[in-house]
Amino acid sequence: MNEAAFIQSLRALATHPAARNLEDDCAVLEVGNETLILTHDMMVEGTHYLPGADMSDVAWKLVACNLSDLAAKGAEPLGVLLGHMLGEDDEAFASGIAEALWHCNVPLLGGDTVGGKGTRSHGLTAIGRATHTPVPSRGGAQVGDAVYITGALGAAMVGYEALRGGTDADHLAYSRPLPRLAEGQVLAPFVTAMMDISDGLLLDAFRMAEASQLSIAIDSAAVPVAVPEDRRMDALTWGDDYELLFTLPAGIEPPVPATRIGQVEPRGFAPLFLDGEPLINVEGLGYSHK
Amino acid sequence: MNEAAFIQSLRALATHPAARNLEDDCAVLEVGNETLILTHDMMVEGTHYLPGADMSDVAWKLVACNLSDLAAKGAEPLGVLLGHMLGEDDEAFASGIAEALWHCNVPLLGGDTVGGKGTRSHGLTAIGRATHTPVPSRGGAQVGDAVYITGALGAAMVGYEALRGGTDADHLAYSRPLPRLAEGQVLAPFVTAMMDISDGLLLDAFRMAEASQLSIAIDSAAVPVAVPEDRRMDALTWGDDYELLFTLPAGIEPPVPATRIGQVEPRGFAPLFLDGEPLINVEGLGYSHK
Repeated sequence: MNEAAFIQSLRALATHPAARNLEDDCAVLEVGNETLILTHDMMVEGTHYLPGADMSDVAWKLVACNLSDLAAKGAEPLGVLLGHMLGEDDEAFASGIAEALWHCNVPLLGGDTVGGKGTRSHGLTAIGRATHTPVPSRGGAQVGDAVYITGALGAAMVGYEALRGGTDADHLAYSRPLPRLAEGQVLAPFVTAMMDISDGLLLDAFRMAEASQLSIAIDSAAVPVAVPEDRRMDALTWGDDYELLFTLPAGIEPPVPATRIGQVEPRGFAPLFLDGEPLINVEGLGYSHK
Repeated sequence: MNEAAFIQSLRALATHPAARNLEDDCAVLEVGNETLILTHDMMVEGTHYLPGADMSDVAWKLVACNLSDLAAKGAEPLGVLLGHMLGEDDEAFASGIAEALWHCNVPLLGGDTVGGKGTRSHGLTAIGRATHTPVPSRGGAQVGDAVYITGALGAAMVGYEALRGGTDADHLAYSRPLPRLAEGQVLAPFVTAMMDISDGLLLDAFRMAEASQLSIAIDSAAVPVAVPEDRRMDALTWGDDYELLFTLPAGIEPPVPATRIGQVEPRGFAPLFLDGEPLINVEGLGYSHK
């Protein structure tokens, strides 16, 4: 069963209002006078990282990708719970978790450690509180908005290639990504839509356009890239950069360093236009986590 | 690395106040005017269930064991996040999740589904709000308290044996345990200590005594068992019953059906006494999840 079918089958069975969204990156939960943001990501050996990978980097990334989901909601992290399958490299794994949490000033609240033979997997749940409501979503873009991203794209790709090819290039952007927590909180009151670019700019912009039921037009030349010009398109489709993609109403300047890369238009022939060309299928636009 | 060493190493590295307890079943988090309870449990193929197990039962149990942790805190569940590694039996797994959540009236808030080859694992995070503060813990028992349990022990053991041996006996107590959510909420304002008996009465009572830094004396004959008399001791050391173990000050009657099985005494020669005999080591007292 694939992911969509599994989710479909959960939905069909859970007649309870229950069956909320497993596809969205975060859950939003009102409790008392607070709005909580919850997210859970798993990493599986052989799928999300290769056997032999530096487990401190794997652990760091597990923390970073969850906190990046909170960042896109403008949430202040309150803590994480770790589900960890014990193995050979636990000291490195523990150090990666601790370093990432220390760096982001987020407490480890609890979790579970389990034994087991075979393929290892690790899960992390991050919980945060919204610093602004309504909580930004990927579905709120409005016609006429400008589209922005923080940072530059492609550094993670270069880092991955350095690690894989054994070049001397810096691989920190890939192995130790930094979630844009501060930026997300500053942006939250201003944006009409926001999400992180974990799966590649084009794929994530496509999703934002679909969720907002309109079209997004991107000017590829406007996108800041951290790679040579001949690799610009690679940088636009590579994931793992963990920058923020957001939309602002016309006339509002971004309150954090960011670059305007396009605009929001009425729903046209396709959800996404790149330099005027319609992009209809998500295939090839980026990395679909399976 | 074993569990204790991993936790030790996390603690050593996380100089952040961060490094809270991975051993306790739940995290307690104050947010705004609410107290949240969070718990995360993982189930791994080959460790927590056998290949070939009915995945709807595995899924039910994953929900039930997490909600049972909330029950022991007197928490009202707010929802769960699921981390699920996709596989062959996903329809059954989804139905088990949906049925358990429906039964307990708890929403699925989100989560992550991932692909991967090899050993499967599944994680669930449950979040609830405390209905009473201070939140009951396993460490609050007082000398002179009476010790109680809800329900009877051993039904899960019989169910397991029925499944394994292929007898006709009812296996629902093992395969579809019911977390004592209502009882936990009613009990929370009265108890001095409370926990669930997921790992067996003797092991969990031992842990309660250790956490409370005193001794618990149990009268084995007083413990209600759902098995023939010659299997009483088995029932006291078998896990998976998900009943509640709690202590009440002398003179307070339990507000839910429960049986008095012993009392809390000053710290003696051992944390746990069974019919007057000291039990010093946890070995053999119950099921230690690894």
